[in-house]
Amino acid sequence: MDTATTTCSAVDLAALLSSSSNSTSSLSAATFLCSQISNISNKLSDTTFAVDNTYLLFSAYLVFAMQLGFAMLCAGSVRAKNTMNIMLTNVLDAAAGAISYYLFGFAFAFGTPSNGFIGRHHSFFALSSYPERPGSDFSFFLYQWAFAIAAAGITSGSIAERTQFVAYLIYSTFLTGFVYPTVSHWFWSSDGWASASRSDNNLLFGSGAIDFAGSGVVHMVGGIAGLWGALVEGPRIGRFDRSGRSVALRGHSASLVVLGTFLLWFGWYGFNPGSFLTILKGYDKSRPYYGQWSAVGRTAVTTTLSGCTAALTTLFSKRLLAGHWNVIDVCNGLLGGFAAITSGCAVVEPWAAIVCGFVASWVLIGFNLLAKKLKYDDPLEAAQLHGGCGAWGLIFTGLFASKQYVNEVYSGDRPYGLLMGGGGKLLAAQIVQIIVIVGWVTVTMGPLFYGLHKMNLLRISAEDEMAGMDMTRHGGFAYAYNDEDDVSTKPWGHMAGRVEPTSRSSTPTPTLTV
Amino acid sequence: MDTATTTCSAVDLAALLSSSSNSTSSLSAATFLCSQISNISNKLSDTTFAVDNTYLLFSAYLVFAMQLGFAMLCAGSVRAKNTMNIMLTNVLDAAAGAISYYLFGFAFAFGTPSNGFIGRHHSFFALSSYPERPGSDFSFFLYQWAFAIAAAGITSGSIAERTQFVAYLIYSTFLTGFVYPTVSHWFWSSDGWASASRSDNNLLFGSGAIDFAGSGVVHMVGGIAGLWGALVEGPRIGRFDRSGRSVALRGHSASLVVLGTFLLWFGWYGFNPGSFLTILKGYDKSRPYYGQWSAVGRTAVTTTLSGCTAALTTLFSKRLLAGHWNVIDVCNGLLGGFAAITSGCAVVEPWAAIVCGFVASWVLIGFNLLAKKLKYDDPLEAAQLHGGCGAWGLIFTGLFASKQYVNEVYSGDRPYGLLMGGGGKLLAAQIVQIIVIVGWVTVTMGPLFYGLHKMNLLRISAEDEMAGMDMTRHGGFAYAYNDEDDVSTKPWGHMAGRVEPTSRSSTPTPTLTV
Amino acid sequence: MDTATTTCSAVDLAALLSSSSNSTSSLSAATFLCSQISNISNKLSDTTFAVDNTYLLFSAYLVFAMQLGFAMLCAGSVRAKNTMNIMLTNVLDAAAGAISYYLFGFAFAFGTPSNGFIGRHHSFFALSSYPERPGSDFSFFLYQWAFAIAAAGITSGSIAERTQFVAYLIYSTFLTGFVYPTVSHWFWSSDGWASASRSDNNLLFGSGAIDFAGSGVVHMVGGIAGLWGALVEGPRIGRFDRSGRSVALRGHSASLVVLGTFLLWFGWYGFNPGSFLTILKGYDKSRPYYGQWSAVGRTAVTTTLSGCTAALTTLFSKRLLAGHWNVIDVCNGLLGGFAAITSGCAVVEPWAAIVCGFVASWVLIGFNLLAKKLKYDDPLEAAQLHGGCGAWGLIFTGLFASKQYVNEVYSGDRPYGLLMGGGGKLLAAQIVQIIVIVGWVTVTMGPLFYGLHKMNLLRISAEDEMAGMDMTRHGGFAYAYNDEDDVSTKPWGHMAGRVEPTSRSSTPTPTLTV
Repeated sequence: MDTATTTCSAVDLAALLSSSSNSTSSLSAATFLCSQISNISNKLSDTTFAVDNTYLLFSAYLVFAMQLGFAMLCAGSVRAKNTMNIMLTNVLDAAAGAISYYLFGFAFAFGTPSNGFIGRHHSFFALSSYPERPGSDFSFFLYQWAFAIAAAGITSGSIAERTQFVAYLIYSTFLTGFVYPTVSHWFWSSDGWASASRSDNNLLFGSGAIDFAGSGVVHMVGGIAGLWGALVEGPRIGRFDRSGRSVALRGHSASLVVLGTFLLWFGWYGFNPGSFLTILKGYDKSRPYYGQWSAVGRTAVTTTLSGCTAALTTLFSKRLLAGHWNVIDVCNGLLGGFAAITSGCAVVEPWAAIVCGFVASWVLIGFNLLAKKLKYDDPLEAAQLHGGCGAWGLIFTGLFASKQYVNEVYSGDRPYGLLMGGGGKLLAAQIVQIIVIVGWVTVTMGPLFYGLHKMNLLRISAEDEMAGMDMTRHGGFAYAYNDEDDVSTKPWGHMAGRVEPTSRSSTPTPTLTV
Repeated sequence: MDTATTTCSAVDLAALLSSSSNSTSSLSAATFLCSQISNISNKLSDTTFAVDNTYLLFSAYLVFAMQLGFAMLCAGSVRAKNTMNIMLTNVLDAAAGAISYYLFGFAFAFGTPSNGFIGRHHSFFALSSYPERPGSDFSFFLYQWAFAIAAAGITSGSIAERTQFVAYLIYSTFLTGFVYPTVSHWFWSSDGWASASRSDNNLLFGSGAIDFAGSGVVHMVGGIAGLWGALVEGPRIGRFDRSGRSVALRGHSASLVVLGTFLLWFGWYGFNPGSFLTILKGYDKSRPYYGQWSAVGRTAVTTTLSGCTAALTTLFSKRLLAGHWNVIDVCNGLLGGFAAITSGCAVVEPWAAIVCGFVASWVLIGFNLLAKKLKYDDPLEAAQLHGGCGAWGLIFTGLFASKQYVNEVYSGDRPYGLLMGGGGKLLAAQIVQIIVIVGWVTVTMGPLFYGLHKMNLLRISAEDEMAGMDMTRHGGFAYAYNDEDDVSTKPWGHMAGRVEPTSRSSTPTPTLTV
Repeated sequence: MDTATTTCSAVDLAALLSSSSNSTSSLSAATFLCSQISNISNKLSDTTFAVDNTYLLFSAYLVFAMQLGFAMLCAGSVRAKNTMNIMLTNVLDAAAGAISYYLFGFAFAFGTPSNGFIGRHHSFFALSSYPERPGSDFSFFLYQWAFAIAAAGITSGSIAERTQFVAYLIYSTFLTGFVYPTVSHWFWSSDGWASASRSDNNLLFGSGAIDFAGSGVVHMVGGIAGLWGALVEGPRIGRFDRSGRSVALRGHSASLVVLGTFLLWFGWYGFNPGSFLTILKGYDKSRPYYGQWSAVGRTAVTTTLSGCTAALTTLFSKRLLAGHWNVIDVCNGLLGGFAAITSGCAVVEPWAAIVCGFVASWVLIGFNLLAKKLKYDDPLEAAQLHGGCGAWGLIFTGLFASKQYVNEVYSGDRPYGLLMGGGGKLLAAQIVQIIVIVGWVTVTMGPLFYGLHKMNLLRISAEDEMAGMDMTRHGGFAYAYNDEDDVSTKPWGHMAGRVEPTSRSSTPTPTLTV
């Protein structure tokens, strides 16, 4: 630390004070004291920035870990023959997203002042003269980038196993670079028209929509985009049989699904509590131990309770409906509970989070039944889960947001949850958010997917779909568990007239094939 | 930061000081100075809370990551046919544990004042009026929840591959909601009867048991519970052949075992160093750079050294005993070293941690030999590892706790390790802890498992055990690596004579079912 | 927090000030004020240590997570029959590295004052009287240990699938305990001869080499060591066919490769930004929001951009060169971009990081073509990636280091990047670093590998290589996916007079062996 603050000589100061009726000396004393106080203030300011940036950076790293979670969840949820394909899309969400979000996405989202529709301040494009002001440092860019790529990751699940790679590159860049930033501008930027944290207090319905960590901005955007993609493409071959009955096309590895789910859970602790952006802020002088750090912790708790309740609800309801205890369904239920609480996590009581998760589980089950009925095929249930539970989360916030927490987290006295006695204004804003997001994503992503479809750029050929994209587009299978017989990793390997010994283990095994 | 602290006008202050023989003016000067100092103090208080809560929250996230580690370790250690089952139990440990720990477990553990046996303060049940006092914020709840679910995770390893799912739900809720919270109350709460951090200094043997991060409270509890479960259930079919010889039932994926082990290692940096709960505390004015942050770092180092020593000792001893270099054994040895150091990690020298790990490795080898002799089957070696090495850890602390560190970490002058010249009082308390934990878990979990057994709710049928629980209870196999040949994912697929259409994927595969 | 700072009674202070022409009373006032300021200063000092150590510890945990990333990347990149072997080496890098780095490696690297070649201060050996001074606490040891084991992990990739386990134990200990610490002493210690942060300003070329997080110190050291190991051992059997054509020996699991890559990415946020070691430091009084926390965030951003650019460049160039979209190549390209930016990450502009990653991708492609031409076999491309891209990273820093950032991160006015107008001195120092590292690793590791080779301790027999090391040295296969047929996990199992069908996949496949 700066040594300036540590040297306070009582003898010297006393000499100054003792003659302080003399104005020169009193100026010296005052100068000395003020310089001490000023040094301390500077150091406290540095400390605040260091603590808040540490908090935000590590939260960003956790959110980034969700990309790994998505990759593993998606990989495990598709058939082995498309594993390389889906993992590549997840890597590229992050990679292409970093470049496009750096060049313009971030400026569109947060480059205030905006033109009312989209951000455009020059210093944000390519971070050209960044950071220019407090409250928006590189940690903030990193954090927002990690959010942007999560949205694209959601969409890739809906259209898995049948989408051309080029189509993927096009929609992913468009979504991360333009569609998503626009939405995040509206709801999260200080001059977003529906933002609850508008700096000018000209709030939508006197409230603004409260989408604290993005049930709508991230999850619904990704889910609705996926919905249109999957609708335009149609179901995978074999997903519904000739009589129209639904046939589960099971993913190839439950272990990867559980791994991915747990990683998403882990990362959600960066996603939701991290959305406070800062942690060093006291709330209540009469209770000095209570501050933003408590709200951050409470947010982690509501997040946990909602996801866990949804997981348990799904466990038992699926046991009743399907007759077995299904870990994959439990994982999806858990994630549905997380997606739902993401909007209100910071402003609801822990008990309300349990309500949130309970309903989220049924929302997911309901949308899945509907999807089956409509012959809608979404390999990751992404539209149902992120779209459906995300929308429920926005409504939930409008119903259950607590007065005290809304006032603490968003400054001032403002509308809160309808069922908590806060009137219907917040709920109205939340419903507007749902409508606007569905509309905006539909008019941007719908035509894009339709155009790609018309240009034959969207869906792969039936032959490629049967063979799997890994073999036809990505250079081979993801797995080869039988070593010395590498050719067997190609599914048609055994079709060729091979002459070498073929035993999989190293032992000569003539008896194997009798 | 609050701007109040930043404005110190030397000219204004000088004016006040120069006339400070005038009592009104001197009051103004004093008021001004005191208000500055008070602002600074408030800001420093906020800063301390923010730093400590950031530290504890991220530590809690790391401990949570251990649940993922357990899931992967367990999954890899069982046969493929039971993978879904064991992973589901790991997800549910976390999910069911969150609800029960929120509703009452946390209040039982830390809801002081207690009735001497168990906590019961109303504000802790369902976090009803929480946080009510400093030192116990939401981050603390989250941290303790992550510990509670770790205990249940240990137990699930012991009874893997043969336990009914309903039995699992019952014992897990009972363990997380009651048995474990009680033990953590006794040893960790400020009014626990054997706690080394009792607020009234009425310490057991003038010392209290030092179980810093839970070799006993977490690892022994989980391990002894697993011991009784596995004893009541008996070994898996085929684990000991007709002549009584031990037959290894190897897990299905060493990659998952290594993944799980590394994740547990990663999470242990939250478990052990995180158990300080705070980091912003100076120890020694003469060495300002030395404080709780140093003790936290030292704890990470002792943890690392103990685990690594145990891993290396296991590597070489198993090479001598079994003739090969075994990565699974090395992983278990590593975890045994971690489980052992968990009690004393904060109060021993780094060199002592090496002793701890060395002995832990042999404790594990010894208990494994004993288990083989007694035909005790524990698929994860959980009772041996967490129970055995956990107990050794408590004794180790009684022998090697350093005077300086005990006095720094637990306030005041108190007994320390026997071999360090600190007398036998600490060791006596540690032995009492071992006895009490073994006794308490035995009288609670023993009858529970026995009752479930008598009601035929504990063990699955022999047929289900042979077929695997995934197929019979959880809707199917965890893996399907051969896409075009999906039928092979059902182990009886090749038994031919099947009449239903067999292709899961869309490819017609007539030749497959000949 | 200490209550001492919170009590400022204005009335009492006023009484003291009002009579402060009286010298006793003025001394009291001054003493009171100074004690307040001193308390605050102490608390600020504690806060600084707590924040910086929290930052460094969690960064160290992230770097440790890279070891898991290496383990998974390596496991997925080798054939299934060698999975246990390579994972064991990764566990042991960490475990053996902890002991050797604790005993002497850390003292060699940072035990200043040194003898000009290597550190040797007694308090660092086995951390015997540690911490003895500010700036070097246990968190620093942990952080540096995590770096040391990364170097050894790189090397193990180059010599995978054909190296005796004993050879591995010998070279790993030698590398982590001596070769690597020496290099880190030269470039990172405050009295290292080529360090850019020498305390005496007697800098190499007035500049010192800037290898902020170790493109040279870690990546080149590991890569060059691997190069010599792989050269001495020669290629794996079957890697080049009789006509000398290169035959890809594909790894057995792309999922593990992607998992490992993402974990390395995640950990790199500890590796690069964490290398600041502290975060609480203001840079610019006129912009109080701009400080080391900004530089840390910017480092995370440059790291991200370089890796992502390299991934995208590799994606498209490989599509052109090989005709498919290859996720494994994209992962390697990504890691190459990270390895390259690691040197300059803290001192270059974000746009320059894009240049860095673009070139890194081509460097890797080029070295891979060269390797093919020279029949050099490196299963993880470790020498090409970490050696080649690491060297490019050092040159890149010499070209693009920005004046402002160099002056902020390294104190004082000093040479910076050639292309940024900073002259050639920094570039000269960077080139010296490349030469010195190649030389030092060659003269230490080259003879070691050659000696092991001559003593027949280096390479396994051809029979063992064909059979795989897991079966011959590590007790069995890593995987057993077909449960009911447990005996089949032992390749010799079917040699017993079994009558059931024995094929591993369930499909009877008589046609396989024609």
